[in-house]
Amino acid sequence: MSNKTPITVVKIGGNVIDDATVLDSFLKDFAALEGAKILVHGGGKLATRTAESLGIEAVFHEGRRITDAPMLEVAVMTYAGWINKSITAKLQALDSNAMGFTGADGNLIRSEKRQNAAIDFGFVGDVVSVDAKLLEVLTVLGVVPVFCAVTHDRKGQLLNTNADTIASTIAVACSEYFDVKLLYCFEKKGVLLDVNDNDSVIKTLTFGEFSRLREQGAIHSGMLPKLENCFNALNKGVTQIGIGGPAMITGEAHTLITP
Amino acid sequence: MSNKTPITVVKIGGNVIDDATVLDSFLKDFAALEGAKILVHGGGKLATRTAESLGIEAVFHEGRRITDAPMLEVAVMTYAGWINKSITAKLQALDSNAMGFTGADGNLIRSEKRQNAAIDFGFVGDVVSVDAKLLEVLTVLGVVPVFCAVTHDRKGQLLNTNADTIASTIAVACSEYFDVKLLYCFEKKGVLLDVNDNDSVIKTLTFGEFSRLREQGAIHSGMLPKLENCFNALNKGVTQIGIGGPAMITGEAHTLITP
Repeated sequence: MSNKTPITVVKIGGNVIDDATVLDSFLKDFAALEGAKILVHGGGKLATRTAESLGIEAVFHEGRRITDAPMLEVAVMTYAGWINKSITAKLQALDSNAMGFTGADGNLIRSEKRQNAAIDFGFVGDVVSVDAKLLEVLTVLGVVPVFCAVTHDRKGQLLNTNADTIASTIAVACSEYFDVKLLYCFEKKGVLLDVNDNDSVIKTLTFGEFSRLREQGAIHSGMLPKLENCFNALNKGVTQIGIGGPAMITGEAHTLITP
Repeated sequence: MSNKTPITVVKIGGNVIDDATVLDSFLKDFAALEGAKILVHGGGKLATRTAESLGIEAVFHEGRRITDAPMLEVAVMTYAGWINKSITAKLQALDSNAMGFTGADGNLIRSEKRQNAAIDFGFVGDVVSVDAKLLEVLTVLGVVPVFCAVTHDRKGQLLNTNADTIASTIAVACSEYFDVKLLYCFEKKGVLLDVNDNDSVIKTLTFGEFSRLREQGAIHSGMLPKLENCFNALNKGVTQIGIGGPAMITGEAHTLITP
């Protein structure tokens, strides 16, 4: 067992953000979580809706958003502006001393604009470094960092970064100072053995079992990079990873990923 | 003389925000300022422009924005989102460890929705408290707080608050821990004796002189509440206040307000 202080890093996606009732219920549970904690949130539909209202066309390539200059502005306005600050204000009302961040704030997450890809994803950043020391100092002060999916290159450029990646790189970086539990809340109750049966949640998934299911083709395509990301984080120091619905943080059944 | 650590609180308005060249030049000077410092920025024209593009009508009453729910969302998106995070990223590129805040972040500025006014200004907040202790801790860590004109009521509601007021209340609250210099950068070179002559800058303005000029009607109507605010801040512990152009922070001539 580790002697380090425990910390919980929770990532919520669009399905939680877009439903006010689900979000409020999740935030109540999150505020009640004991100990040090960090929240990472995705964007939800507000960016797409705002872009549409502004007459900016959202472009996707294989499910991934292409972030041109007008779309970056919309992403920063919605993710770092309205969504991040609304969540921060709601957590404050629940006695949780939330502080909303992009990676630019305090240089907490520095990234690099993605280069040399077959496709130009635009203003998209791959994480280079996380200042886990500053996060440790902030949590000791009782601060609850709340991150949106925006980073910067420390050359003045804001960049859009995948929220799952932000959560896992924060979790890995924090493992130097903390005993890290990483929880991915998404729209299913966990990793499903049968993608059409929401009750076929795998309770524990080891790397051996994952490899076997991957070979069988039983693991859903969208789930594949998510799980590879998880095993990567476990290899790099994260203690425990959970995948499940937002009620997972209060103990609802979910998939526990172990090495 | 005070034994407290010096801090400079600088407020920039729309005229600095809206001109990329002026803003970049100002941020370079601000990043070079020695010692603890805090930046407070206004909104500029982006909120009005974004609201227009979204088909939301901006309503003003006697020059003050009425903040209804859609306009609050636009204000938070533009002030706390794009403008605040762009400034933060630019300062980071200049080796200044900026962290962008609304009042909701860390409960740094709590306000109260304005009540019982003859006119309902909507989601507008009057400052109730500033957590100067947390600001002190952050500046000791080398963090440069950057505030936009958004606060919260700690009941989950974000509120729009006048940036001049945010700057002066931060300055007053910080005077408990710091020797505070407050600088208001605006579109003139200082308080003018003749409003049509940009070179008629008053070098030093005492309360006695201010009272005399006010009686004579020589002080411009928009300048009146700004100066009353200044003398109020001096009475409450702020050491020194300057009013002038953005180059004031590097020593350009400006108006020095003294008790």
